[in-house]
Amino acid sequence: MKKISAPKGMRDFYPDEYRVKQVLFRAWEEAARKFGFELYEAPVVETLELLERKAGEEISSQIYVLDKKGGQQLALRPELTPSLARMIIARQGELSFPLKWASIAQCFRYERMQKGRKREHYQLNLDIVGESSCMAEVEVLGAAVHAMHALGLNHTDFHIRIGSRSLLSVLFDSLGIAADHFTACCLALDKRDKISDVDVHKLLINENVSTGDIKKIFELLNIRSLEDVHRMLAGIEQAGPILDEITDFFELASDAGLRDYFSFDPGVIRGLGYYTGIVFEAFDRNHQSRAIFGGGRYDNLLSSLGGHNLPCVGLGFGDVVVTDLLKELGRCPGIQRFVDYAVGFMDIQCRPFASRVASRIRRSGLDCDLGLSGEKPKRFFSRGNRLNARKAVFIGPTEVETGLIQVKNMVDGRVRSLRLDESTDFKSVEVPG
Amino acid sequence: MKKISAPKGMRDFYPDEYRVKQVLFRAWEEAARKFGFELYEAPVVETLELLERKAGEEISSQIYVLDKKGGQQLALRPELTPSLARMIIARQGELSFPLKWASIAQCFRYERMQKGRKREHYQLNLDIVGESSCMAEVEVLGAAVHAMHALGLNHTDFHIRIGSRSLLSVLFDSLGIAADHFTACCLALDKRDKISDVDVHKLLINENVSTGDIKKIFELLNIRSLEDVHRMLAGIEQAGPILDEITDFFELASDAGLRDYFSFDPGVIRGLGYYTGIVFEAFDRNHQSRAIFGGGRYDNLLSSLGGHNLPCVGLGFGDVVVTDLLKELGRCPGIQRFVDYAVGFMDIQCRPFASRVASRIRRSGLDCDLGLSGEKPKRFFSRGNRLNARKAVFIGPTEVETGLIQVKNMVDGRVRSLRLDESTDFKSVEVPG
Repeated sequence: MKKISAPKGMRDFYPDEYRVKQVLFRAWEEAARKFGFELYEAPVVETLELLERKAGEEISSQIYVLDKKGGQQLALRPELTPSLARMIIARQGELSFPLKWASIAQCFRYERMQKGRKREHYQLNLDIVGESSCMAEVEVLGAAVHAMHALGLNHTDFHIRIGSRSLLSVLFDSLGIAADHFTACCLALDKRDKISDVDVHKLLINENVSTGDIKKIFELLNIRSLEDVHRMLAGIEQAGPILDEITDFFELASDAGLRDYFSFDPGVIRGLGYYTGIVFEAFDRNHQSRAIFGGGRYDNLLSSLGGHNLPCVGLGFGDVVVTDLLKELGRCPGIQRFVDYAVGFMDIQCRPFASRVASRIRRSGLDCDLGLSGEKPKRFFSRGNRLNARKAVFIGPTEVETGLIQVKNMVDGRVRSLRLDESTDFKSVEVPG
Repeated sequence: MKKISAPKGMRDFYPDEYRVKQVLFRAWEEAARKFGFELYEAPVVETLELLERKAGEEISSQIYVLDKKGGQQLALRPELTPSLARMIIARQGELSFPLKWASIAQCFRYERMQKGRKREHYQLNLDIVGESSCMAEVEVLGAAVHAMHALGLNHTDFHIRIGSRSLLSVLFDSLGIAADHFTACCLALDKRDKISDVDVHKLLINENVSTGDIKKIFELLNIRSLEDVHRMLAGIEQAGPILDEITDFFELASDAGLRDYFSFDPGVIRGLGYYTGIVFEAFDRNHQSRAIFGGGRYDNLLSSLGGHNLPCVGLGFGDVVVTDLLKELGRCPGIQRFVDYAVGFMDIQCRPFASRVASRIRRSGLDCDLGLSGEKPKRFFSRGNRLNARKAVFIGPTEVETGLIQVKNMVDGRVRSLRLDESTDFKSVEVPG
């Protein structure tokens, strides 16, 4: 018979892998809750039209499109932001702003598979809609850092680079580079991780940027202190508010106890063209892999999709890179399965009693794995060990006859006898030494 | 600008709706854990070939197919079972059986929308693979009943009808109806909820079943006690083991404390052709809606997909019908959002202090919603009420000057003064009367 093939680039989560994922999802949810974000969810398919309006051609070819049914052309979402925008626009009159929303969304892109990049991934999305001050940036970053803490990662493990699209924009303006070249220039500069500076230089030349201006752009990108930026942009009037904003951001980050995580790096671009202000990316300290999380301010999205204008800040935090990082650091939670109780029985005559014991344990609020068929005690207890059962009860003919059960503490081997009745609360069954 | 359309038949979960869904998912996960099921997850897309091999033509037209990319024809799953089978077959040599697996899976079908039926739904899947005794059926049903309990539903609200495909098969055999007509006959009988008995009669005639045999089939379907079935099938030798099995099932269900939920009803068919033994369906007591959950034994699936033969029992429990039922009963958890602390501030001069207070609260392990911009106390406290904050701290110029903060208990209005320092643990901050 023909072998069944799995879908390429998509993951199966067997129980062992599922438990690891669950640790990550719990950390994400806890961080969202701790920072006052509300969870929501959008469909994994959206209309292709919406996805393309937000994404632009850049990623269109990577979208999994569905065969048309009933007049709608649907597609698997490559990112959550278009859905968020659609949901907010649909209720823009009813919702209270600013709002802080979080979602864990599976997203799909058809692309060449490589380290840290499959054809689907899960992504925590944190968005604040309706706040123009950099409190929004600091809060989404604070929540992401909190999730990292919950996973056992701190500032010795990762850092966050902070840039500003508006800063670049002002610089480009001051160099006389036309606004309609700005996005293309940003995309060129964004490739600096992947291609050489010489090749970036060529791309900028293609955009009609002069050699002298390219020199100035690279000078700016290599700056690492706000003071130097102030000096460089001293003569440029429109730079004032933008410099104030980023200065404000760093001060507020200090108040929030996040200063150790952040470094100023005007070369952070974030590929997508839609960012308008501060942008950020987190990397492991060795910069071995793709960004752990990233995002920034995108103040024009809602209006570009037909909503009223509202300032937005968003952050995306994928599951693949951080899980790889935890594995590399040897700190991936290899979560052992466990169960409160294992109950087994010798043969079919013992089964009714075993079933009653299991029911009683479950009604006490505890987890119980009940053996499904008769087995020898030795086999039962070794299975109990494999399940990592904390306590175990085996029902043989003696138990059936006497009505007494033996609760065995699987950690230290101690045993306690117990007579089962309708009021037995297994939560209070201590096994004494 | 053109309005953005939402994908038809797919749901948005705004925060209020998300919280309701979360209550259901938590109940499902708790039930799975309590009964020793391990959670796993399969991709939401699978190869169309796998889905069609399992589903048959019956639902093929309802499958959302993706445009072919890279040589694989993928599709959104209409059900989880094919993926489960694929995952088990891929590791059949390594896994220990019997295994008990659970998953909450979103499934998609393109069909006419109606009450209790959208184009996607979430479904808890509970499967036991590798156990031939009816302990498997009792355990999956026990877990589903436990989930219903966790949602506040009990035997006065719903009941579970138990049938047997093998019983029907033996009866058809005994009537001389050829085995290759069996599936078609089952599908005809399965329509009894939707079409009249006269029409079912016609469908059976089309399958070359004689009028006399149809009478016998309807007689069997109307039986509601095991004793009557025994009487009816008394002369049929192959019926013995099947009657023993279903008798055994009801005894074991009693031991497990589930007897009040179950009734015998040989007319339970379950549309899908792949069931081989006991089948079951849960309905609300008024039988107002589609099945709440259902399933049964399917012993041939793995071998039909190229794996080694292993007996299987599965149960699917959708999110839509049970949520509708809870709403109709007025018992849908209208979960109010809440947060441990709300922190706000008067103006930008007060912001750094407010940020430090929020950080300290979060580091104490509590949830805190921090205002994003300056606001008047009145506005802050009314926002705090809307958030359902348990405690609230407002930072004005006095707080900044004195370093003393006022923690207000939002339930009773009591206030306590506090000096913030690095060791302040907000978990231990009681607000006295």
